[in-house]
Amino acid sequence: MALPRSIRDLSDRFSSLPGVGPKLSNRIALYLSISNRKLASRLEDSLKDVTEKIRLCNNCFNVTDNEDLCEICDNSERDSSTILVVETPLELYSIEETGEYKGLYHVLHGIISPVNGIGPDEIKINELINRLQNNSEIEEIIFGLNPNLEGDSTSLYITNEVKDLDLDVKTTRLAKGIPTGSSIEYMSSQTLSDSLRRRDGVE
Amino acid sequence: MALPRSIRDLSDRFSSLPGVGPKLSNRIALYLSISNRKLASRLEDSLKDVTEKIRLCNNCFNVTDNEDLCEICDNSERDSSTILVVETPLELYSIEETGEYKGLYHVLHGIISPVNGIGPDEIKINELINRLQNNSEIEEIIFGLNPNLEGDSTSLYITNEVKDLDLDVKTTRLAKGIPTGSSIEYMSSQTLSDSLRRRDGVE
Repeated sequence: MALPRSIRDLSDRFSSLPGVGPKLSNRIALYLSISNRKLASRLEDSLKDVTEKIRLCNNCFNVTDNEDLCEICDNSERDSSTILVVETPLELYSIEETGEYKGLYHVLHGIISPVNGIGPDEIKINELINRLQNNSEIEEIIFGLNPNLEGDSTSLYITNEVKDLDLDVKTTRLAKGIPTGSSIEYMSSQTLSDSLRRRDGVE
Repeated sequence: MALPRSIRDLSDRFSSLPGVGPKLSNRIALYLSISNRKLASRLEDSLKDVTEKIRLCNNCFNVTDNEDLCEICDNSERDSSTILVVETPLELYSIEETGEYKGLYHVLHGIISPVNGIGPDEIKINELINRLQNNSEIEEIIFGLNPNLEGDSTSLYITNEVKDLDLDVKTTRLAKGIPTGSSIEYMSSQTLSDSLRRRDGVE
Protein backbone atom coordinates (compact mmCIF):
# COMPACT_ATOMS: atom_id res chain seq x y z
CA MET A 1 0.00 0.00 0.00
CA ALA A 2 1.25 3.46 -0.86
CA LEU A 3 -0.13 6.95 -0.22
CA PRO A 4 -3.11 7.85 -2.48
CA ARG A 5 -1.97 9.04 -5.93
CA SER A 6 -3.05 12.68 -5.50
CA ILE A 7 -1.00 12.99 -2.29
CA ARG A 8 1.99 11.32 -3.96
CA ASP A 9 1.73 13.73 -6.91
CA LEU A 10 1.60 16.70 -4.57
CA SER A 11 4.57 15.36 -2.63
CA ASP A 12 6.57 14.79 -5.86
CA ARG A 13 5.98 18.38 -6.89
CA PHE A 14 7.02 19.72 -3.52
CA SER A 15 10.20 17.64 -3.66
CA SER A 16 11.11 19.44 -6.93
CA LEU A 17 11.41 22.70 -4.98
CA PRO A 18 14.84 23.93 -3.85
CA GLY A 19 15.65 22.75 -0.31
CA VAL A 20 12.77 20.27 0.05
CA GLY A 21 13.70 16.56 0.34
CA PRO A 22 11.38 13.54 -0.10
CA LYS A 23 10.58 13.02 3.63
CA LEU A 24 9.71 16.68 4.15
CA SER A 25 7.65 16.77 0.96
CA ASN A 26 5.58 13.76 2.15
CA ARG A 27 4.99 15.49 5.46
CA ILE A 28 3.94 18.72 3.73
CA ALA A 29 1.65 16.91 1.26
CA LEU A 30 -0.12 15.07 4.07
CA TYR A 31 -0.34 18.21 6.19
CA LEU A 32 -2.03 20.08 3.34
CA SER A 33 -4.37 17.18 2.44
CA ILE A 34 -5.74 16.59 5.91
CA SER A 35 -4.54 18.94 8.63
CA ASN A 36 -4.64 22.32 6.95
CA ARG A 37 -6.89 22.53 3.89
CA LYS A 38 -7.35 26.25 4.37
CA LEU A 39 -3.61 26.70 3.80
CA ALA A 40 -3.83 24.40 0.74
CA SER A 41 -6.46 26.61 -0.85
CA ARG A 42 -4.57 29.78 0.09
CA LEU A 43 -1.43 28.39 -1.49
CA GLU A 44 -3.45 27.58 -4.59
CA ASP A 45 -4.66 31.20 -4.78
CA SER A 46 -1.17 32.58 -4.21
CA LEU A 47 0.35 30.40 -6.91
CA LYS A 48 -2.29 31.60 -9.35
CA ASP A 49 -1.64 35.17 -8.25
CA VAL A 50 2.13 35.16 -8.84
CA THR A 51 1.71 33.42 -12.19
CA GLU A 52 -0.71 36.13 -13.29
CA LYS A 53 0.98 39.20 -11.80
CA ILE A 54 4.72 38.72 -11.58
CA ARG A 55 6.98 39.70 -14.45
CA LEU A 56 10.52 41.03 -14.81
CA CYS A 57 11.38 44.75 -14.95
CA ASN A 58 12.24 45.81 -18.52
CA ASN A 59 15.33 47.68 -17.30
CA CYS A 60 16.95 45.75 -14.40
CA PHE A 61 15.12 42.37 -14.57
CA ASN A 62 14.06 42.51 -10.94
CA VAL A 63 10.67 40.88 -10.17
CA THR A 64 7.76 43.29 -10.22
CA ASP A 65 4.01 43.51 -10.50
CA ASN A 66 4.28 46.81 -12.39
CA GLU A 67 3.66 47.02 -16.15
CA ASP A 68 7.01 48.28 -17.40
CA LEU A 69 9.62 49.26 -14.80
CA CYS A 70 9.98 47.97 -11.23
CA GLU A 71 9.47 50.33 -8.30
CA ILE A 72 13.20 50.91 -7.97
CA CYS A 73 13.85 51.79 -11.64
CA ASP A 74 10.66 53.85 -11.63
CA ASN A 75 11.78 55.89 -8.61
CA SER A 76 13.37 59.15 -9.80
CA GLU A 77 14.99 59.66 -6.37
CA ARG A 78 17.28 56.65 -6.83
CA ASP A 79 20.83 57.48 -7.93
CA SER A 80 21.04 56.40 -11.57
CA SER A 81 24.84 56.73 -11.68
CA THR A 82 25.47 53.36 -10.00
CA ILE A 83 24.28 49.85 -10.85
CA LEU A 84 24.64 47.03 -8.33
CA VAL A 85 24.80 43.64 -10.08
CA VAL A 86 23.23 40.62 -8.31
CA GLU A 87 22.58 36.99 -9.22
CA THR A 88 18.89 36.82 -8.15
CA PRO A 89 16.27 39.20 -6.71
CA LEU A 90 16.89 37.62 -3.25
CA GLU A 91 20.28 39.33 -2.96
CA LEU A 92 18.72 42.56 -4.21
CA TYR A 93 16.19 42.56 -1.36
CA SER A 94 18.88 41.61 1.19
CA ILE A 95 20.83 44.67 0.12
CA GLU A 96 17.68 46.85 0.10
CA GLU A 97 17.12 45.86 3.74
CA THR A 98 20.34 47.59 4.77
CA GLY A 99 18.86 50.95 3.62
CA GLU A 100 22.42 51.86 2.66
CA TYR A 101 22.25 51.69 -1.13
CA LYS A 102 20.40 54.34 -3.14
CA GLY A 103 21.40 53.40 -6.69
CA LEU A 104 19.90 51.02 -9.26
CA TYR A 105 20.34 47.27 -9.73
CA HIS A 106 20.81 44.71 -12.46
CA VAL A 107 19.67 41.11 -11.89
CA LEU A 108 21.66 38.56 -13.93
CA HIS A 109 19.31 35.62 -13.20
CA GLY A 110 22.24 33.27 -12.94
CA ILE A 111 26.02 33.16 -12.78
CA ILE A 112 28.64 32.07 -15.33
CA SER A 113 29.29 28.41 -14.51
CA PRO A 114 31.02 26.18 -17.09
CA VAL A 115 30.38 23.13 -14.83
CA ASN A 116 26.63 23.73 -15.09
CA GLY A 117 26.84 24.71 -18.77
CA ILE A 118 25.93 28.34 -18.10
CA GLY A 119 27.78 30.81 -20.33
CA PRO A 120 27.58 34.63 -20.56
CA ASP A 121 24.70 34.48 -23.08
CA GLU A 122 22.49 32.42 -20.73
CA ILE A 123 22.29 35.25 -18.21
CA LYS A 124 21.42 38.96 -18.50
CA ILE A 125 24.92 40.24 -19.32
CA ASN A 126 24.13 41.58 -22.81
CA GLU A 127 21.23 43.48 -21.27
CA LEU A 128 23.65 45.09 -18.77
CA ILE A 129 26.03 46.09 -21.58
CA ASN A 130 23.07 47.65 -23.44
CA ARG A 131 22.18 49.68 -20.36
CA LEU A 132 25.75 51.00 -20.21
CA GLN A 133 25.75 51.91 -23.88
CA ASN A 134 22.41 53.70 -23.67
CA ASN A 135 22.89 55.58 -20.37
CA SER A 136 25.85 57.92 -20.26
CA GLU A 137 25.11 58.86 -16.63
CA ILE A 138 26.30 55.47 -15.30
CA GLU A 139 29.59 55.93 -13.42
CA GLU A 140 30.00 52.73 -11.41
CA ILE A 141 29.10 49.04 -11.54
CA ILE A 142 29.18 47.36 -8.10
CA PHE A 143 29.28 43.54 -8.10
CA GLY A 144 27.18 42.00 -5.32
CA LEU A 145 27.80 38.40 -6.39
CA ASN A 146 28.48 35.55 -3.95
CA PRO A 147 32.22 35.53 -3.04
CA ASN A 148 33.15 32.21 -4.66
CA LEU A 149 34.84 31.03 -7.86
CA GLU A 150 31.74 31.54 -10.04
CA GLY A 151 30.89 34.94 -8.57
CA ASP A 152 34.49 36.16 -8.96
CA SER A 153 34.76 34.84 -12.55
CA THR A 154 31.50 36.51 -13.52
CA SER A 155 32.61 39.86 -12.03
CA LEU A 156 35.89 39.60 -13.91
CA TYR A 157 34.20 38.66 -17.20
CA ILE A 158 31.82 41.62 -17.01
CA THR A 159 34.63 43.97 -15.96
CA ASN A 160 36.55 43.02 -19.12
CA GLU A 161 33.46 43.53 -21.27
CA VAL A 162 32.98 46.97 -19.70
CA LYS A 163 36.62 47.90 -20.37
CA ASP A 164 36.16 46.98 -24.04
CA LEU A 165 33.34 49.54 -24.28
CA ASP A 166 35.85 52.28 -23.51
CA LEU A 167 33.39 54.20 -21.34
CA ASP A 168 34.32 56.04 -18.16
CA VAL A 169 32.75 53.40 -15.86
CA LYS A 170 34.37 52.12 -12.67
CA THR A 171 33.81 48.48 -11.57
CA THR A 172 33.94 47.56 -7.87
CA ARG A 173 32.73 44.69 -5.70
CA LEU A 174 31.46 44.21 -2.13
CA ALA A 175 34.37 43.94 0.34
CA LYS A 176 35.50 40.43 1.27
CA GLY A 177 36.30 39.86 4.93
CA ILE A 178 35.08 38.64 8.29
CA PRO A 179 31.29 39.04 8.74
CA THR A 180 30.36 41.40 11.59
CA GLY A 181 29.40 39.43 14.71
CA SER A 182 31.17 36.24 13.62
CA SER A 183 34.04 34.43 15.37
CA ILE A 184 37.52 34.52 13.86
CA GLU A 185 38.03 31.02 15.27
CA TYR A 186 35.37 29.63 12.92
CA MET A 187 36.44 31.48 9.76
CA SER A 188 38.02 29.54 6.90
CA SER A 189 41.71 30.10 6.10
CA GLN A 190 40.67 31.67 2.81
CA THR A 191 38.43 34.21 4.58
CA LEU A 192 41.18 35.08 7.05
CA SER A 193 43.78 35.40 4.25
CA ASP A 194 41.44 37.71 2.34
CA SER A 195 40.69 39.84 5.38
CA LEU A 196 44.39 40.09 6.24
CA ARG A 197 45.36 41.08 2.72
CA ARG A 198 42.56 43.65 2.50
CA ARG A 199 43.01 45.02 6.04
CA ASP A 200 42.16 48.68 6.50
CA GLY A 201 42.84 51.48 8.95
CA VAL A 202 41.18 51.59 12.39
CA GLU A 203 39.05 54.71 12.66
CA MET B 1 11.71 48.30 -1.26
CA ALA B 2 10.33 44.86 -0.54
CA LEU B 3 9.39 41.90 -2.73
CA PRO B 4 6.11 42.41 -4.68
CA ARG B 5 3.04 41.62 -2.56
CA SER B 6 2.00 38.47 -4.45
CA ILE B 7 5.46 36.93 -3.94
CA ARG B 8 5.44 37.92 -0.26
CA ASP B 9 2.01 36.32 0.19
CA LEU B 10 3.19 33.12 -1.47
CA SER B 11 6.31 33.10 0.69
CA ASP B 12 4.26 33.68 3.88
CA ARG B 13 2.08 30.70 3.06
CA PHE B 14 5.05 28.46 2.35
CA SER B 15 6.60 29.47 5.66
CA SER B 16 3.46 28.19 7.44
CA LEU B 17 4.32 24.66 6.26
CA PRO B 18 6.11 22.26 8.61
CA GLY B 19 9.89 22.39 8.15
CA VAL B 20 9.99 25.52 5.94
CA GLY B 21 11.67 28.62 7.42
CA PRO B 22 11.43 32.22 6.15
CA LYS B 23 14.66 32.18 4.07
CA LEU B 24 13.72 28.94 2.30
CA SER B 25 10.15 30.12 1.71
CA ASN B 26 11.42 33.32 0.01
CA ARG B 27 13.66 31.21 -2.20
CA ILE B 28 10.80 28.87 -3.10
CA ALA B 29 8.37 31.74 -3.80
CA LEU B 30 10.83 33.44 -6.13
CA TYR B 31 11.72 30.15 -7.82
CA LEU B 32 8.06 29.49 -8.57
CA SER B 33 7.33 33.07 -9.69
CA ILE B 34 10.14 33.36 -12.21
CA SER B 35 12.28 30.25 -12.71
CA ASN B 36 9.72 27.44 -12.82
CA ARG B 37 6.17 28.54 -13.63
CA LYS B 38 5.34 25.11 -14.99
CA LEU B 39 5.94 23.68 -11.51
CA ALA B 40 3.84 26.50 -10.01
CA SER B 41 0.87 25.55 -12.16
CA ARG B 42 1.39 21.84 -11.48
CA LEU B 43 1.46 22.52 -7.75
CA GLU B 44 -1.76 24.50 -8.15
CA ASP B 45 -3.42 21.51 -9.88
CA SER B 46 -2.16 19.06 -7.27
CA LEU B 47 -3.39 21.19 -4.39
CA LYS B 48 -6.82 21.35 -6.01
CA ASP B 49 -6.70 17.62 -6.57
CA VAL B 50 -5.96 16.61 -2.97
CA THR B 51 -8.56 19.06 -1.66
CA GLU B 52 -11.18 17.48 -3.92
CA LYS B 53 -10.22 13.82 -3.63
CA ILE B 54 -8.65 13.09 -0.26
CA ARG B 55 -10.77 12.10 2.70
CA LEU B 56 -10.37 9.89 5.76
CA CYS B 57 -11.36 6.20 5.83
CA ASN B 58 -14.61 5.67 7.78
CA ASN B 59 -13.10 2.78 9.70
CA CYS B 60 -9.40 3.48 10.41
CA PHE B 61 -9.10 7.21 9.52
CA ASN B 62 -6.24 6.65 7.09
CA VAL B 63 -6.10 9.03 4.10
CA THR B 64 -7.84 7.67 1.02
CA ASP B 65 -9.38 8.65 -2.29
CA ASN B 66 -12.00 5.88 -1.95
CA GLU B 67 -15.61 6.66 -1.08
CA ASP B 68 -16.05 4.71 2.17
CA LEU B 69 -13.17 2.50 3.28
CA CYS B 70 -9.45 2.86 2.47
CA GLU B 71 -7.70 0.20 0.39
CA ILE B 72 -6.38 -1.52 3.49
CA CYS B 73 -9.72 -1.78 5.34
CA ASP B 74 -11.37 -2.76 2.05
CA ASN B 75 -8.92 -5.62 1.45
CA SER B 76 -10.45 -8.91 2.72
CA GLU B 77 -7.01 -10.54 2.70
CA ARG B 78 -5.77 -8.33 5.54
CA ASP B 79 -5.86 -9.92 8.99
CA SER B 80 -8.75 -8.25 10.81
CA SER B 81 -7.74 -9.67 14.20
CA THR B 82 -5.03 -7.04 14.79
CA ILE B 83 -5.14 -3.25 14.74
CA LEU B 84 -1.93 -1.25 14.65
CA VAL B 85 -2.41 2.21 16.16
CA VAL B 86 -0.42 5.12 14.65
CA GLU B 87 -0.36 8.87 15.17
CA THR B 88 -0.52 9.92 11.48
CA PRO B 89 -0.76 8.21 8.06
CA LEU B 90 3.00 8.81 7.56
CA GLU B 91 3.83 6.15 10.17
CA LEU B 92 1.26 3.84 8.60
CA TYR B 93 3.01 4.03 5.22
CA SER B 94 6.43 3.59 6.84
CA ILE B 95 5.16 0.34 8.40
CA GLU B 96 3.50 -0.76 5.15
CA GLU B 97 6.88 -0.43 3.43
CA THR B 98 8.32 -3.21 5.61
CA GLY B 99 5.80 -5.64 4.07
CA GLU B 100 5.81 -7.34 7.49
CA TYR B 101 2.40 -6.36 8.80
CA LYS B 102 -0.79 -7.86 7.36
CA GLY B 103 -3.36 -6.55 9.83
CA LEU B 104 -5.43 -3.37 9.97
CA TYR B 105 -4.59 0.11 11.30
CA HIS B 106 -6.10 2.90 13.32
CA VAL B 107 -4.86 6.46 12.79
CA LEU B 108 -5.26 8.65 15.90
CA HIS B 109 -4.46 11.94 14.10
CA GLY B 110 -2.59 13.18 17.13
CA ILE B 111 -1.24 12.08 20.48
CA ILE B 112 -2.32 12.82 24.06
CA SER B 113 -0.27 15.86 25.04
CA PRO B 114 -1.29 17.96 28.06
CA VAL B 115 1.44 20.51 27.21
CA ASN B 116 -0.21 21.15 23.84
CA GLY B 117 -3.72 20.94 25.30
CA ILE B 118 -4.53 17.70 23.46
CA GLY B 119 -6.65 15.31 25.52
CA PRO B 120 -8.08 11.86 24.64
CA ASP B 121 -11.22 13.38 23.09
CA GLU B 122 -9.22 15.49 20.62
CA ILE B 123 -7.87 12.39 18.85
CA LYS B 124 -9.55 9.27 17.42
CA ILE B 125 -9.56 7.18 20.63
CA ASN B 126 -13.33 6.89 21.04
CA GLU B 127 -13.48 5.68 17.44
CA LEU B 128 -10.94 2.95 18.27
CA ILE B 129 -12.99 1.87 21.33
CA ASN B 130 -16.09 1.70 19.09
CA ARG B 131 -14.24 -0.55 16.66
CA LEU B 132 -13.33 -2.90 19.52
CA GLN B 133 -16.91 -2.99 20.82
CA ASN B 134 -18.36 -3.69 17.38
CA ASN B 135 -15.82 -6.25 16.13
CA SER B 136 -15.46 -9.35 18.26
CA GLU B 137 -12.74 -10.75 15.96
CA ILE B 138 -10.15 -8.21 17.19
CA GLU B 139 -7.53 -10.00 19.30
CA GLU B 140 -4.67 -7.57 19.53
CA ILE B 141 -3.96 -3.84 19.51
CA ILE B 142 -0.36 -3.00 18.56
CA PHE B 143 0.83 0.52 19.42
CA GLY B 144 3.08 2.01 16.75
CA LEU B 145 3.44 5.42 18.44
CA ASN B 146 6.70 7.34 18.62
CA PRO B 147 8.78 6.02 21.55
CA ASN B 148 8.65 9.11 23.74
CA LEU B 149 6.69 10.32 26.76
CA GLU B 150 3.58 11.27 24.80
CA GLY B 151 3.55 8.07 22.76
CA ASP B 152 4.01 5.90 25.84
CA SER B 153 1.34 7.79 27.82
CA THR B 154 -1.12 7.45 24.95
CA SER B 155 -0.46 3.68 24.67
CA LEU B 156 -0.96 3.30 28.41
CA TYR B 157 -4.14 5.40 28.41
CA ILE B 158 -5.69 3.33 25.60
CA THR B 159 -4.56 0.07 27.23
CA ASN B 160 -6.44 1.03 30.40
CA GLU B 161 -9.53 1.92 28.39
CA VAL B 162 -9.34 -1.45 26.63
CA LYS B 163 -9.01 -3.26 29.98
CA ASP B 164 -12.15 -1.51 31.21
CA LEU B 165 -14.08 -3.01 28.28
CA ASP B 166 -13.37 -6.48 29.67
CA LEU B 167 -12.84 -7.95 26.19
CA ASP B 168 -10.26 -10.59 25.38
CA VAL B 169 -7.94 -8.13 23.60
CA LYS B 170 -4.18 -8.09 24.07
CA THR B 171 -2.29 -4.76 23.86
CA THR B 172 1.31 -4.71 22.67
CA ARG B 173 3.71 -2.13 21.37
CA LEU B 174 6.62 -2.02 18.94
CA ALA B 175 9.84 -3.20 20.59
CA LYS B 176 12.07 -0.52 22.05
CA GLY B 177 14.66 -1.32 19.41
CA ILE B 178 13.73 2.07 18.04
CA PRO B 179 15.99 4.74 19.53
CA THR B 180 14.01 6.74 22.12
CA GLY B 181 13.37 10.30 20.99
CA SER B 182 13.52 9.52 17.26
CA SER B 183 10.63 9.57 14.78
CA ILE B 184 9.16 6.40 13.24
CA GLU B 185 8.76 8.25 9.97
CA TYR B 186 12.55 8.44 9.56
CA MET B 187 13.45 4.87 10.54
CA SER B 188 14.75 2.32 8.04
CA SER B 189 12.48 -0.55 7.03
CA GLN B 190 14.83 -2.98 8.81
CA THR B 191 14.54 -1.14 12.13
CA LEU B 192 10.76 -1.17 11.77
CA SER B 193 10.69 -4.90 10.85
CA ASP B 194 12.78 -5.74 13.92
CA SER B 195 10.63 -3.72 16.27
CA LEU B 196 7.46 -5.26 14.83
CA ARG B 197 8.77 -8.79 15.38
CA ARG B 198 9.91 -8.03 18.98
CA ARG B 199 6.78 -6.20 20.12
CA ASP B 200 5.97 -6.69 23.84
CA GLY B 201 3.18 -6.10 26.40
CA VAL B 202 2.25 -2.67 27.78
CA GLU B 203 2.85 -2.57 31.54
